[in-house]
Amino acid sequence: MTTVGFIGLGIMGGPMAANLVDAGFDVVGHNRGRAAVDALVARGGRAAGTVAGAVRDADILITMLPDSPDVEAVVLGNDGVLEHARPGLLLIDMSTIRPDVARALSAAGADAGVRVLDAPVSGGEPAAVEGSLSIMVGGDTADVEAARPVLETLGQTIVHVGPAGAGQTVKAANQLMVAGNIQLLAEAIVFLDAHGVDAEAAIKVLGGGLAGSTVLNRKAAGMLRREYTPGFRLALHHKDLGIVSAAAREAGVVTPLGAVVAQLVAAMVARGDGGLDHSGLLKLTEELAGRPGTPRT
Amino acid sequence: MTTVGFIGLGIMGGPMAANLVDAGFDVVGHNRGRAAVDALVARGGRAAGTVAGAVRDADILITMLPDSPDVEAVVLGNDGVLEHARPGLLLIDMSTIRPDVARALSAAGADAGVRVLDAPVSGGEPAAVEGSLSIMVGGDTADVEAARPVLETLGQTIVHVGPAGAGQTVKAANQLMVAGNIQLLAEAIVFLDAHGVDAEAAIKVLGGGLAGSTVLNRKAAGMLRREYTPGFRLALHHKDLGIVSAAAREAGVVTPLGAVVAQLVAAMVARGDGGLDHSGLLKLTEELAGRPGTPRT
Repeated sequence: MTTVGFIGLGIMGGPMAANLVDAGFDVVGHNRGRAAVDALVARGGRAAGTVAGAVRDADILITMLPDSPDVEAVVLGNDGVLEHARPGLLLIDMSTIRPDVARALSAAGADAGVRVLDAPVSGGEPAAVEGSLSIMVGGDTADVEAARPVLETLGQTIVHVGPAGAGQTVKAANQLMVAGNIQLLAEAIVFLDAHGVDAEAAIKVLGGGLAGSTVLNRKAAGMLRREYTPGFRLALHHKDLGIVSAAAREAGVVTPLGAVVAQLVAAMVARGDGGLDHSGLLKLTEELAGRPGTPRT
Repeated sequence: MTTVGFIGLGIMGGPMAANLVDAGFDVVGHNRGRAAVDALVARGGRAAGTVAGAVRDADILITMLPDSPDVEAVVLGNDGVLEHARPGLLLIDMSTIRPDVARALSAAGADAGVRVLDAPVSGGEPAAVEGSLSIMVGGDTADVEAARPVLETLGQTIVHVGPAGAGQTVKAANQLMVAGNIQLLAEAIVFLDAHGVDAEAAIKVLGGGLAGSTVLNRKAAGMLRREYTPGFRLALHHKDLGIVSAAAREAGVVTPLGAVVAQLVAAMVARGDGGLDHSGLLKLTEELAGRPGTPRT
């Protein structure tokens, strides 16, 4: 039986680890907060009190952590993954981090006899629960094939997009598009409200035409109710758009819409709304139009 | 048998009129250029050499024309629709025009005993051919019901969104979102290319996650080939974004992404690229990044 260590049992990692248990993997979970570990054990997984405990017996180790420094600390740090890994461990980092950090982890792994993939995901909490994530994988082909049984348990669309770091580059493009799609939907909703048009009926017909999108299908209903419970917090999307901005500058790419939406997300975080779901961009867009908290009519 | 006059047999109007013929309507078509009328006759429709000829016997008249002044001239002008309409004619304007002009046409129609709906569409040429358009309808409920057999022949999603002009308001929101979605996809493609990531593989996984959209499904393949044959010309989208900008200003709505993409579309038209498909925004985005005409690798 394949033993899968899983570090980071948050909004995304928790249901992902649960799906691995349900699929018959021997899952050993570690998390800073104890409640998520208890939930995994109740589901049939095993608990690890330390990183070392999660990695020691693992054939495959998954990390699902908030940001680049978290992953660096867990993988490269004292008492970290590379220190305790069995030879030939396959480390799949599914966090969203900087592509250059993903490449550095891959190189450090190679030096320590650990194979590393960057495999960030899209689809949000509902897709994590359903096991229907989109997974963009960077790394060596043989390692991607070795990871496939695990990845196919977690996701529906698994694509090997290139060498180490390529998964994170595609995820950066994903986050640019998602933030932009949400902001465009927010602008459309405020525009329709301001003209007295029934936004709910309008969203139905917009979704059927060329303006249709997964963001519209998954986010519009909550936005029409002005419910911004995460889901995916603006603070995390702000972090991701920082990755996009840096990677775009580095490659000499100009992203006019990406730059503007990054500013709007930054404004939300600066004013203390970083804990809202990213669909909360509607809140700022309404206030820019002098229509704070317009209720649905 | 219901006689449907059809004025404007272009990229959209031509296949729409053909679908009405196939569905058994008696279709009388008029168009400035003769070739499109001949094509309709070959399909089983009838030809009208003048606006009067298309409207005289019509129970329902559809107009599908490029811009507000075109519709005003055909409907309100000398020898126009209102002058030759039978009492009780149902006029369905499916063009994309200004909401205030749609309201003026409705009022003028009421004075002349002609019922008027604004019913612009989304989905582009493929949906016009398939009869799967999204149709956003403004006007009186009884008139929408009377129009339904015709609209259901042309489209799949038909939503009555409000009184006269509401259809055009929703269409404006649609055009804002579509232009923005295309530009976001263009920025993502340039970003991926610049980082040496296989954009085709990336698009596949992006489409499966929260970045998925109808624009991605319908436009990405052509954009990866750098094929910008219309489809929907940037010159027309520029006209539509002028409607969006004016209607947003009028209602006091701030549209940060809508404003930026309107500028980019304006730049394409100003430099002589207005005849390209709107997916041609990729061309400008590549040039902004100093990567003109990057071929697919």
